Amino acid sequence: MGPVSADDARWMGAALTLASRGRGQTSPNPSVGCVIVRDGMVVGRGWTQPGGRPHAEAMALADAGAAAVGATVYVTLEPCAHVSARGPACADLLLAAKVARVVVALGDPDPRTNGKGLARLAAAGIETIAGVRADEARATMAGFLSRIENGRPHVTLKLATSLDGCIAMADGESRWITGPEARAHAHLERSRHEAVLVGRGTWDVDQPKLDVRLPGLESRSPSRVVLSSARGEGDTAWIDSPAAIADLPGDHLFIEGGAGAAAAFLAQDLVDRLVLYRAPILIGRGRAALGDIGLGALGDAHDRWTCTDTRQLGRDRLEVYERVRCLPGS
Amino acid sequence: MGPVSADDARWMGAALTLASRGRGQTSPNPSVGCVIVRDGMVVGRGWTQPGGRPHAEAMALADAGAAAVGATVYVTLEPCAHVSARGPACADLLLAAKVARVVVALGDPDPRTNGKGLARLAAAGIETIAGVRADEARATMAGFLSRIENGRPHVTLKLATSLDGCIAMADGESRWITGPEARAHAHLERSRHEAVLVGRGTWDVDQPKLDVRLPGLESRSPSRVVLSSARGEGDTAWIDSPAAIADLPGDHLFIEGGAGAAAAFLAQDLVDRLVLYRAPILIGRGRAALGDIGLGALGDAHDRWTCTDTRQLGRDRLEVYERVRCLPGS
Repeated sequence: MGPVSADDARWMGAALTLASRGRGQTSPNPSVGCVIVRDGMVVGRGWTQPGGRPHAEAMALADAGAAAVGATVYVTLEPCAHVSARGPACADLLLAAKVARVVVALGDPDPRTNGKGLARLAAAGIETIAGVRADEARATMAGFLSRIENGRPHVTLKLATSLDGCIAMADGESRWITGPEARAHAHLERSRHEAVLVGRGTWDVDQPKLDVRLPGLESRSPSRVVLSSARGEGDTAWIDSPAAIADLPGDHLFIEGGAGAAAAFLAQDLVDRLVLYRAPILIGRGRAALGDIGLGALGDAHDRWTCTDTRQLGRDRLEVYERVRCLPGS
Repeated sequence: MGPVSADDARWMGAALTLASRGRGQTSPNPSVGCVIVRDGMVVGRGWTQPGGRPHAEAMALADAGAAAVGATVYVTLEPCAHVSARGPACADLLLAAKVARVVVALGDPDPRTNGKGLARLAAAGIETIAGVRADEARATMAGFLSRIENGRPHVTLKLATSLDGCIAMADGESRWITGPEARAHAHLERSRHEAVLVGRGTWDVDQPKLDVRLPGLESRSPSRVVLSSARGEGDTAWIDSPAAIADLPGDHLFIEGGAGAAAAFLAQDLVDRLVLYRAPILIGRGRAALGDIGLGALGDAHDRWTCTDTRQLGRDRLEVYERVRCLPGS
């Protein structure tokens, strides 16, 4: 392993940004980003294509052409070591392109690679570095890692509330609590998930379309899932328990309510990320954001969530919380 | 009126900071700050003393002594023009001290002054400027202005909630939702109010002391008020309706719950400021922050509150909202 420079961290930032482009589109593969740099200039850029192939490294190498010779490759996941019917091994492509140096954020947990990609490069005399901005890389491929680590999609729960935590008036009226900027952001979140889930009550009452109504992103509308003890009809998946999400296609699930469905997932500890939109209003005796999540003691509620992002969206406030990951062995 | 410079705005900032020192201590007078500057140096500082006298200008002039001759005086409220049994008129003190220039944030609405202070100075050939950082000055003397404009104290409502808006578990357990930093901040807020109010339910169940438990600020513990249809005993004021706060002594009232008392004040539009402490936890089926506030339609909830401060307090988030003031004539 060679030394890591501040430049390495910066270039990896560019690769991480490219990685986010494919989110929600690359299942069952992770969404990876790759930047190829020679003499301080970007000579190639790539990211995982819809459906998971070609890989980011293949795209970036094709972009760079002969300029890749002697260059440094920044990639958010270890290059794959296995030849697939769908494409060559990226480690082999990098060898053939005669790159000088490969900087990786995260090792590939896929047992067909898991260190073999970097080992093959190192054995050929290419300088390799791993672990640069690894935590951020984990976040860009949360769905892929959740499939491996938890056997289910990565789950985000959206709540749009008043300051006093209501999601609707007592009569169910909820249009609108948040403003147009927050609602547009929620559509952007939808576009980054393969599937959107609502509870049966919300499905029956609101008849939500759950599509992406943002210019240019309409094709990214996710599939729809309803949590219900009864089975419904149409081009929608129906599941009768939160645990059944393991069998859904796609690596990212977005839960949009209502309070009962949200609580059912929280009670089974199946929520990885909270996206909260908070309007600067008070409702008073309205509908609570959550039903029973099975909390036995107040002390048990602490140390489960950490704020990872907050910003203003028009008059509303966005807050993103992520589940605190347990360290191995803890 | 002379020209306003960037320096004027900066020195007024120092006066505003001094003004905040007396908050909750100067009733029935406003808490005012004063800085005297000559040749770019501060030669005198003062703020309204506990009980309302001496005034800030008198303190600053005494601090400056002969150095006030030819100096500029920055004061957050127009110097008073009236002689009182409790002290001389500050406009006369400034004339006697032979200051060259007086910069004021806000004109004094007291009919005994209301322009007369500045007019007396201007008539004597002293340069006067008014309106420098007036909005911030209004905030430092919110209680004084509320007495004049609304005939009642300025009211702050505190809520300490989970992310889903609960103030307690279903069984009432609320120790602790927020961490020690947020709880210390709530004690600092208490110290800036003459009175703290809770509802009868909270009073009976929690037996709250409502004192200030911060080293050095114990003497700033506010008086206690209980909202209750029945009358209680002890060294506590009992009121039977929110409107009765008009007769309480002091210019700042801090409401600490519970949900019923908070809602009663909101329903009568008697809350000027919200202080929200939010812990990064979810409770689910707990106690809601507010009871019925009389909201008829969701649209009526909007455009009433604006966020004026937000910061991290340990693991918790502080947000301060202020009531949107109607412009005159609107």
